[in-house]
Amino acid sequence: MPVGTLATVKAMSSQELHALGCGIILANSYHLSQRPGPEIVRLHGGIHKFMKWDGAILTDSGGFQIYSLSSFRKVDDDGVRFRSHVDGSYFFMTPESVVDLQQQLGSDIAMPLDECVGLPSEHAAVRLAVNKTYQWAKRTIAHKANSTQAHFGIIQGGIFPDLRRLSALQITELGFDGYAVGGLSVGESKADMQSALSVVSELMPPVKPRYLMGVGAPLDILEGVALGIDMFDCVLPTRTARNGLLFTWNGRYNVKNSSHKNDTRPVDESCECPVCREYSRAYLRHLYLTKEILGARLLTIHNLYFYLDLMRKIRQTIASSMFSAFYREFKDRWDRRPCCFES
Amino acid sequence: MPVGTLATVKAMSSQELHALGCGIILANSYHLSQRPGPEIVRLHGGIHKFMKWDGAILTDSGGFQIYSLSSFRKVDDDGVRFRSHVDGSYFFMTPESVVDLQQQLGSDIAMPLDECVGLPSEHAAVRLAVNKTYQWAKRTIAHKANSTQAHFGIIQGGIFPDLRRLSALQITELGFDGYAVGGLSVGESKADMQSALSVVSELMPPVKPRYLMGVGAPLDILEGVALGIDMFDCVLPTRTARNGLLFTWNGRYNVKNSSHKNDTRPVDESCECPVCREYSRAYLRHLYLTKEILGARLLTIHNLYFYLDLMRKIRQTIASSMFSAFYREFKDRWDRRPCCFES
Repeated sequence: MPVGTLATVKAMSSQELHALGCGIILANSYHLSQRPGPEIVRLHGGIHKFMKWDGAILTDSGGFQIYSLSSFRKVDDDGVRFRSHVDGSYFFMTPESVVDLQQQLGSDIAMPLDECVGLPSEHAAVRLAVNKTYQWAKRTIAHKANSTQAHFGIIQGGIFPDLRRLSALQITELGFDGYAVGGLSVGESKADMQSALSVVSELMPPVKPRYLMGVGAPLDILEGVALGIDMFDCVLPTRTARNGLLFTWNGRYNVKNSSHKNDTRPVDESCECPVCREYSRAYLRHLYLTKEILGARLLTIHNLYFYLDLMRKIRQTIASSMFSAFYREFKDRWDRRPCCFES
Repeated sequence: MPVGTLATVKAMSSQELHALGCGIILANSYHLSQRPGPEIVRLHGGIHKFMKWDGAILTDSGGFQIYSLSSFRKVDDDGVRFRSHVDGSYFFMTPESVVDLQQQLGSDIAMPLDECVGLPSEHAAVRLAVNKTYQWAKRTIAHKANSTQAHFGIIQGGIFPDLRRLSALQITELGFDGYAVGGLSVGESKADMQSALSVVSELMPPVKPRYLMGVGAPLDILEGVALGIDMFDCVLPTRTARNGLLFTWNGRYNVKNSSHKNDTRPVDESCECPVCREYSRAYLRHLYLTKEILGARLLTIHNLYFYLDLMRKIRQTIASSMFSAFYREFKDRWDRRPCCFES
């Protein structure tokens, strides 16, 4: 799902997301708790009405942003004390406050407070984090009580298969509405990520949504799907677009490359997106180099179209039992042409 | 007309401009000659196809940008030698090269090279510039020959009524397709601008379009119309939008004002624009303060809607002989409430 940290998917309007066939976006509880604050969102009748998006919204717990943005963070059994990266003031976040915050925001799917330890971490430290995540998950279940939102559990365990197994068993016994794999795609090797994911994947109930958090590049998504994952979120399609990098069925495309200077062709002649149907490589390069807002917009539209198209094709090929062939063919093509438009 | 310096009206797509009822935009020859260069635009079949805009396009001569942006500029009888603000290279621009450049760009209306002297300038200096503008206008007419573009003449003369009269007589005798007033709204007093404009206005043939360049604020436009002006161009609606200042029928509106923090109402409840119909003051403030691209987009849409609506109302009230009353009422309201939403 596209990520909208501040009640908007960067550079996009809600209408454009709809037109692209986007059904769900992610909003960051931490960012929204800082600006504009949950009370203002609640006053509007929730995040959907605030940003005028009537598709689905998943909110994260905010825990990961504290981990990555806050200059001060202290975790104890009760919760996390941290300093706002916006105004430096201190906050205390508990499993219960995180449920309440997301209730105020009014998202469709809420995520619990968990503990995600950095890399590298000792087995013993990750084990403590797994245990804390479990205790907090139980408090989340107890506190959400009659919530009308869906609540997902988060499985931790770093790159240790035994801890991944332990966490998966602990979290899935609690009866969440879906299950997420946290703490991956944070710098570990591809092999470590895959082995952690394989362990967890077998233990998550297949009848409930399985969500791999913070992933990823097209090939990572295909690998995740091959291991049974249903949902992903990532800033990659929107952030790389703003940096002039596009994804296409022929590989990555660098907008600013001087070989596109005079090129009147679309980025990808086989792409049906509104940008490839209308605009030339030369025009997109011009907008990018002159830092025009329209450049960020058009490049974002292309990348979101590509990602949503990728997910559509994944669903179709799963339904027609052609997913393995589709995955293999995609991988071959990308491996052969890592950045085919660079030359 | 909205100004699109770099083959886009900042933050807008062509589709959005169409949806707002925009019929013509301005593109800057100077900017386009530097980036991406006229050859690339020509390769696409002209500026309309390059930027996918099938409305009308007026290109300026580039003279004013050289005057305002270039670190080096030397004017002689033949033309202007200047240094690019992009890469520092030297160019020489003549009345003929300016016609050719706009031919390559393929705009609908082309403007001639003129000389616009700064403020304050002696009568003698302005007189020389008026004469040079006349000589260059004659060369423009001679060079354009069988051009399929419309070509407008530009009247100079600074704040001196006698020189404005002289320039108007000289330029209008040449048989251009329309007439523009240049060299105003560059820092002179309102009284000086009005007296210069009155002189010129009476001498421009009423059957041809009369265009006041680089103007302006809503009241300046109404004053121009009262003096017979038909066309205006200005960056004000788009630039002020990106700086968080909106125009409304109740006066100016400062998006970032803290009084809007919790305000779930639209900016202007009587406004029919897509932004006031959908979004709250609090949401727009949030987008502006968090520097979201969507903020620049929505605020620009509102201001362009306001300006295009203002022009529509001007046309309607002229047609129904109600313009004077409309002008007076608008002025009263704006004078009374210079920034009504500030408090």
